[in-house]
Amino acid sequence: MTTTLNIGFSFKTLYTSSRSRARVGKIHTPHGTIDTPSFVGVGTNGTLKALDSASVEEIGLQLMFCNTYHLMLQPGSSVVKQAGGLHKFMNRSMPLITDSGGFQVFSLAYGSVADELKGKSKKKVGGNVLKITEDGVLFRSYRDGAKVLLTPETSVQAQKELGADIIIPLDELPPYHIDPKVLRASLDRTHRWEERSLIEHLKNPNQQAMYAVIHGGVDPQLRKLSCNTLAALSFDGFAIGGSMGKTKQEMQTMLSALMPSLPIDKPNHLLGIGDLESIDQCIPLGIDTFDSSYPTRAARHGILLTKSGPLNVTQGKHALAFTSPIPSCTCSTCTRYTLGYLHHLFKAHEMVGMTLATIHNLHFMVELMRDYRKKILNDEI
Amino acid sequence: MTTTLNIGFSFKTLYTSSRSRARVGKIHTPHGTIDTPSFVGVGTNGTLKALDSASVEEIGLQLMFCNTYHLMLQPGSSVVKQAGGLHKFMNRSMPLITDSGGFQVFSLAYGSVADELKGKSKKKVGGNVLKITEDGVLFRSYRDGAKVLLTPETSVQAQKELGADIIIPLDELPPYHIDPKVLRASLDRTHRWEERSLIEHLKNPNQQAMYAVIHGGVDPQLRKLSCNTLAALSFDGFAIGGSMGKTKQEMQTMLSALMPSLPIDKPNHLLGIGDLESIDQCIPLGIDTFDSSYPTRAARHGILLTKSGPLNVTQGKHALAFTSPIPSCTCSTCTRYTLGYLHHLFKAHEMVGMTLATIHNLHFMVELMRDYRKKILNDEI
Repeated sequence: MTTTLNIGFSFKTLYTSSRSRARVGKIHTPHGTIDTPSFVGVGTNGTLKALDSASVEEIGLQLMFCNTYHLMLQPGSSVVKQAGGLHKFMNRSMPLITDSGGFQVFSLAYGSVADELKGKSKKKVGGNVLKITEDGVLFRSYRDGAKVLLTPETSVQAQKELGADIIIPLDELPPYHIDPKVLRASLDRTHRWEERSLIEHLKNPNQQAMYAVIHGGVDPQLRKLSCNTLAALSFDGFAIGGSMGKTKQEMQTMLSALMPSLPIDKPNHLLGIGDLESIDQCIPLGIDTFDSSYPTRAARHGILLTKSGPLNVTQGKHALAFTSPIPSCTCSTCTRYTLGYLHHLFKAHEMVGMTLATIHNLHFMVELMRDYRKKILNDEI
Repeated sequence: MTTTLNIGFSFKTLYTSSRSRARVGKIHTPHGTIDTPSFVGVGTNGTLKALDSASVEEIGLQLMFCNTYHLMLQPGSSVVKQAGGLHKFMNRSMPLITDSGGFQVFSLAYGSVADELKGKSKKKVGGNVLKITEDGVLFRSYRDGAKVLLTPETSVQAQKELGADIIIPLDELPPYHIDPKVLRASLDRTHRWEERSLIEHLKNPNQQAMYAVIHGGVDPQLRKLSCNTLAALSFDGFAIGGSMGKTKQEMQTMLSALMPSLPIDKPNHLLGIGDLESIDQCIPLGIDTFDSSYPTRAARHGILLTKSGPLNVTQGKHALAFTSPIPSCTCSTCTRYTLGYLHHLFKAHEMVGMTLATIHNLHFMVELMRDYRKKILNDEI
């Protein structure tokens, strides 16, 4: 284990549950603190969908995830740099994290695990991916058809231009169904790419932190190897990526085996997982932050998150419900508008409905994580 | 001329310019005051598009226009009544105005004047209109195909259920190209419908005010007849409806002839006209309020209103403009976000862009009307 070189970033565990690996911590960044466990909202294009930055900050979302792939192609990372970086560009004063761009490039090529299981997967090198070599991945821009080469170095350079508080090294995302030998070769290449990313990052740390991405699919030995390999390098935290398995049980088994191999003094992020059941499963395993577009995407489909399950405002039975959508909720939607009105807005295809539902779901996630922190402090988890 | 019976509603002229018929006034309603001249935002479905009621009130839009036709069909006026009326339904504390529903029924049948001039007009009884009789108009709901009969009485009953501060009697909207004899017959029927609407309204005034709708197309004699006929009845104000002509000059000629025929102690509303040039033309003629969906619709297409003309944020030249869209503007969009960021949001098809542009345009209209009131008080208009 090595110490971090980054003075702008630190992680402190305040309390670890006596019943599990669940812990309450604080991630300090140049743009403020993230109380962990924390939900990380996804703002792919430099905005949360349906909600402006000021509203997101009012709700108290401490960390937002933006996608380098999308921002590289529109408006371009150099444009964001000219704006003074992503924080200034989108007028966000609180912490940001960007990914490497690799996930989108590869998921466009392979499709998601769910697609794959449904037989929808694309060819091994398909979609817009033109070539994968030791150097990196060559793909075609979905916007203008231009060829773009994503290497560990270009990904980090783009993320330097964006200037998020936390950045991610380039990794290869292998498909779920993969020959074990090919998976091992992919893992080795991912480790080489991550080390190259770290070297590129450390040329100019610029108060950014870099989280390694742990790979190895659902093979516990490879996951352990990935932890050991990457923990030996001076990353500031760890993100769990790659295939999480095809069921929640498989994910839990994988994470239960993996988590003890990670250093306890660094923050752990679970990439792209943020449904309520998974959060509940993974906090006791020691995951500190979760990013997911689920709460905001669900909102745009009229789904409000509640402690007793999802509430679909578009159902006809809510047309006359002229009371608060969730009476115990203190968000600006639930305190101002009724369930019947939200129902009407969705029926009338008014985009305001999406905005109001997004406010609720984001507030819900912020409050949910606050509750988890309390429960951990009380050894209830 | 008769006095109004409505105790919840009053209009007071504070000052009339020495140079024109332009005047500064106050319309008092049960939900507060409207300073005139005033812009009236259009919230067809019980919400301004892209902006929730709380945000609209923060911007200071004193009067909002909702469409009875749309609300009758979704969610239904009886549903709004069950919610406690339109103000409670949409959580608006400030004044509301609804129309009769007739405009949408007839414009779906005939198309707009612009459509007509471009040869796009539909058959005389086409679209979803099934039959027009002395009783009213039978049409087919665009939502579920059900037959709906709109009469002066059912329109007013629906508007009673909605409960806006100002309501509108049912009128017939004749096409622009119409035989003079047919126009006269249409006008006579409109007057009969409006009187029936008023009678229905006065059975239960319920602190609502009713504005007559002046018709007569571009025929100055018929317009004068309409003024005289309707001013003899106890309406609380006057709305100018029907065909305004095919050019702004034609509208100005028509209004210049018409306005002196209206009582000076009642408020005058110009229906569906709110572009900046028309407002500038019509304020000196004595128009007090203007409703238009133009500022909000333009916003959703990336057009910001400015004193020096429309600014299209989607143009490529704005990609690197990392300064306030309109530096002198104090709206929450111009003080928080840059033109380059707005450009990006539209390019990335993020609906937040529409919301931020709508905030600006609405704020712009509110400020514009404030400026007009100042100019009138200074005899500059």
